[in-house]
Amino acid sequence: MNFLEKKISECGEIKPGNVLKVDSFLNHQIDIAVVREMALEWQRRYNGSKITKILTIEASGIALATMMAIILNVPLVFAKKSKTSNLDDNVYSSKVKSYTHNTTNMVVVSKKYLSSDDYILIIDDFLAHGEALMGLIDLVNQAGATVVGAGIAIEKGFQNGGKSIREKGYRIESLAIIESMDSDTGKVIFK
Amino acid sequence: MNFLEKKISECGEIKPGNVLKVDSFLNHQIDIAVVREMALEWQRRYNGSKITKILTIEASGIALATMMAIILNVPLVFAKKSKTSNLDDNVYSSKVKSYTHNTTNMVVVSKKYLSSDDYILIIDDFLAHGEALMGLIDLVNQAGATVVGAGIAIEKGFQNGGKSIREKGYRIESLAIIESMDSDTGKVIFK
Repeated sequence: MNFLEKKISECGEIKPGNVLKVDSFLNHQIDIAVVREMALEWQRRYNGSKITKILTIEASGIALATMMAIILNVPLVFAKKSKTSNLDDNVYSSKVKSYTHNTTNMVVVSKKYLSSDDYILIIDDFLAHGEALMGLIDLVNQAGATVVGAGIAIEKGFQNGGKSIREKGYRIESLAIIESMDSDTGKVIFK
Repeated sequence: MNFLEKKISECGEIKPGNVLKVDSFLNHQIDIAVVREMALEWQRRYNGSKITKILTIEASGIALATMMAIILNVPLVFAKKSKTSNLDDNVYSSKVKSYTHNTTNMVVVSKKYLSSDDYILIIDDFLAHGEALMGLIDLVNQAGATVVGAGIAIEKGFQNGGKSIREKGYRIESLAIIESMDSDTGKVIFK
């Protein structure tokens, strides 16, 4: 077990419907030491890759992405969620379905902050169905920038987002991949 | 002019209705060097104060608060916005009006992450009418924790939030206080 799997086993709460709550260190309260260790591990895995910018999505990815941007000394951009599809011409936008909240949002980035010269590392806390990550990849592609890859904290390996995005040729480095979890026993099995 | 006032003068965009956009370094794209300098300045101003936790509100306060938590080596909690007032008993909540979006949200923090032993430094990007900051102060008071003070990036000094909250006895350290701004000339005057 790595540091993150251990932290999830100790502090994660499993709720019915395959919901994993990591509010105590990642999603509501943030444990700086854990987040630093995560960013250092992504740095190690992407060592040698050119990265000019970090991209994440509001809100819970921002703390992770900030730590990563500090460590790599590059700017960070966070995509915004917007209910409206009436957006102006100055943004790239992509439609993202949230299975958790059963809603569809637009994710939006100003054209000023993604350019074709950029090499983008996408950072996010969760990967499940892959909708948010595909939306972010879509924004980078619209800008003609390069997707270096993604750094994900927790991947729900029993849902198919990671598999289908990797099959499209994108690199995803997930620090903890959950094979299964059980809200009755509270047990998480990692891949 | 300090570093932040200089950055605002160079990169801020003034829109009609006293809207200041700082998307290029603070609110959408984040310039890590600027944010680090801001956090170091708050550290200097609150030097000697006991601080056990940083509190902010999603989304655009999170990057600033993360930097501050790293520098002080304490955990960070971000309050969540919720449309519903049907909240469970496990949270502290406070009603906050947004003048920008003309909406009223609940701001919510799990009771687990604020305790009466805590000494809280509140961090946020903007202070105008003071609704968000008063909401966060209310959450801290509900928990019986101590409000050490607030660290604000940009205060709109021509609106009365800062004045009225200081009059209640709370300490606010704003790094740039705007006295007036003009969307026609693009000029910002600082206090």
